[in-house]
Amino acid sequence: MTDFAATRALFHLPEGVIYLDGNSLGPVPKAAPARVTQAVQAEWGEMLITAWNKAGWMEMPARLGDRIGRLIGAPEGTVVLGDTLSIKVYQALASALEMRPGRKVILSDSGNFPTDLYMAQGLIASLGQGHELRTVAPEDVAANITEDVAVLMLTEVDYRTGRLHDMAALTAQAHAAGALTIWDLAHSAGAIPVDVTAARADFAVGCTYKYLNSGPGGPAFIYVAPDHADVRPALSGWLGHEAPFAFDPAYRPGTGIARMRVGTPPVLQMAALEAALDIWDGVDMAAIRARSIELSEAFIARVEAACPTLTLASPRDATRRGSQVSFRHPHGYAIMQALISRGVIGDFRAPDILRFGFTPLYLTPEDVTQATEILSEIMENDLWDRPEYKHRAAVT
Amino acid sequence: MTDFAATRALFHLPEGVIYLDGNSLGPVPKAAPARVTQAVQAEWGEMLITAWNKAGWMEMPARLGDRIGRLIGAPEGTVVLGDTLSIKVYQALASALEMRPGRKVILSDSGNFPTDLYMAQGLIASLGQGHELRTVAPEDVAANITEDVAVLMLTEVDYRTGRLHDMAALTAQAHAAGALTIWDLAHSAGAIPVDVTAARADFAVGCTYKYLNSGPGGPAFIYVAPDHADVRPALSGWLGHEAPFAFDPAYRPGTGIARMRVGTPPVLQMAALEAALDIWDGVDMAAIRARSIELSEAFIARVEAACPTLTLASPRDATRRGSQVSFRHPHGYAIMQALISRGVIGDFRAPDILRFGFTPLYLTPEDVTQATEILSEIMENDLWDRPEYKHRAAVT
Repeated sequence: MTDFAATRALFHLPEGVIYLDGNSLGPVPKAAPARVTQAVQAEWGEMLITAWNKAGWMEMPARLGDRIGRLIGAPEGTVVLGDTLSIKVYQALASALEMRPGRKVILSDSGNFPTDLYMAQGLIASLGQGHELRTVAPEDVAANITEDVAVLMLTEVDYRTGRLHDMAALTAQAHAAGALTIWDLAHSAGAIPVDVTAARADFAVGCTYKYLNSGPGGPAFIYVAPDHADVRPALSGWLGHEAPFAFDPAYRPGTGIARMRVGTPPVLQMAALEAALDIWDGVDMAAIRARSIELSEAFIARVEAACPTLTLASPRDATRRGSQVSFRHPHGYAIMQALISRGVIGDFRAPDILRFGFTPLYLTPEDVTQATEILSEIMENDLWDRPEYKHRAAVT
Repeated sequence: MTDFAATRALFHLPEGVIYLDGNSLGPVPKAAPARVTQAVQAEWGEMLITAWNKAGWMEMPARLGDRIGRLIGAPEGTVVLGDTLSIKVYQALASALEMRPGRKVILSDSGNFPTDLYMAQGLIASLGQGHELRTVAPEDVAANITEDVAVLMLTEVDYRTGRLHDMAALTAQAHAAGALTIWDLAHSAGAIPVDVTAARADFAVGCTYKYLNSGPGGPAFIYVAPDHADVRPALSGWLGHEAPFAFDPAYRPGTGIARMRVGTPPVLQMAALEAALDIWDGVDMAAIRARSIELSEAFIARVEAACPTLTLASPRDATRRGSQVSFRHPHGYAIMQALISRGVIGDFRAPDILRFGFTPLYLTPEDVTQATEILSEIMENDLWDRPEYKHRAAVT
């Protein structure tokens, strides 16, 4: 059983803030500043170039990858860090399409995060081989897994609604139809129990700065099922080479997941991630899930009771949701600004979604109660209806 | 005129170290630890998700890109940060090949850094369109710019020998033959004067952790000539979208260089880079070049006088070199280990290259004299001939 009072004490949370946006950017683990400073001063500063060996930088992508692997049911040696999630989607997709040369359809859904769709669109245009990105409604995915599908590419938890796909069932169905699967775990890793092995996922990708709390722009990760360890890496960078420091003119892929490495990894970001994973190492994902459901159910009940004009956009059944809850309102943007100005930080997703993330490591039932009270007050008194809350910044 | 005593005082250099490997990983700018801590604590810690706007994180790739642009002769709005150099090579190459659909040859040379060649090999295999990577000796490049070349892809300064290509002449020749150019500035940016505009380079890419001193795994940069601002981005990630936060299902490229952004940028690494660029902003590249030649000429003269068994691997003509000097020796690895154990840090490149970088911002003539004295002592007394210097670590 995870002690949530203890884990909360391991995070820095600003005074007066209730943070319901850990699904977008997790807060600072208290150990992170010192760990990053160590990387900057003791490692980079004192060891200089020799730190790639002496401080173990070169092995960090694999070492930290294994620690993330534990959270998603991946065996050792099947997860590696690097790049951004967009790049990792591209990398998985380019490899997967090659494994199904006779098929031309990438099946996804409208609940996928746009960058996944964009990267697929870009790859399709580059390949010029007549591939098609077929994007259906989330509820229609199962019915569209046809024999022409090369790859089923989905984000397990919808970034807007929190709707949770059944990874095992859809993967089984994809395999039965001869297709491969790529699962984006951006809103799953550290949010809900994931078992890529049991689900028989072929590829999985994810990011570390949301529920895993690695900090802004932390590296992404990629999982490749052991069965596909001999996949050809489309992004064949030198650190995925069998012998990077032999400087051979010809690329020869490294063994297993090592071949999914590309370029020089971001050491300072990895140092912050390392501090974050020190917290995760002691955490039981089943306990996280139970607490997340407790928090989000309480939130829904209170909001629905007090704010009748807010419409639940997430599945009502907690087992069909990830670790976030969304409500719709035509003035969602202004309402979120009013919340943020009162210290309740969630986020807004166009056109009308108010999104709230539930992160048991540092969020308490008292936080949830207080957040709903502030939201109720805003809604009851139309406190969102002020010009300064309606003016949209370029980036939201 | 740049005051090198003043710039040296802006770097932390470990006690007892003469650092001749700033061409691999630059040292810590003294302002970097505080700037990174600010990003971690004051920005990430206190502003949380709102820092993307409030702390200006979202605009950092373009803002810092412009500051690098000044060092390479690129106009504002033509350079952007992100990803690794390997990814940026791939991005430039995928776009460039599309701009020359009738041609199938990528011309490069054996002095190119292997990852550039590897990324090209991976792209060619993915495309399956019969492209060919033609790799010739550096001195044979000009003679091989034939009418079937789609893209001339070169690293301006050879990572092993320091040999410098004539960017303007080769680009002009490539253009006359109807080819595009991609210049890798990994060993050029911050090392020598570069003018991508005058040279009429089509694409340029580079890294920031060598001469620019951004720290381990700092982000890469990409330049696209204004004439090609409408290039189709092959890596079409959400932050290159015209309106990333509209979450449209279809990719529409942003204006100009913005479209070369892909995923969420590494904020902590960019913070370190920002501190490094504060130093570069005041620097005159002509003064850097003059000082670099002074230092490297002195080094060559002293080494050749004192160490007859070391053979110069770099061009003797300083105007044909970048900012590094390499010597060959059959026991190069052991010699470099002996040097490092005595505080002189250079690096070894297989099979027999001892490589020394000259970085005027923090390297003095006295450092050079002292380094050559230590090297002479090692060579005169065969001090490298010890078992502990011959045992190669997995990573060197």
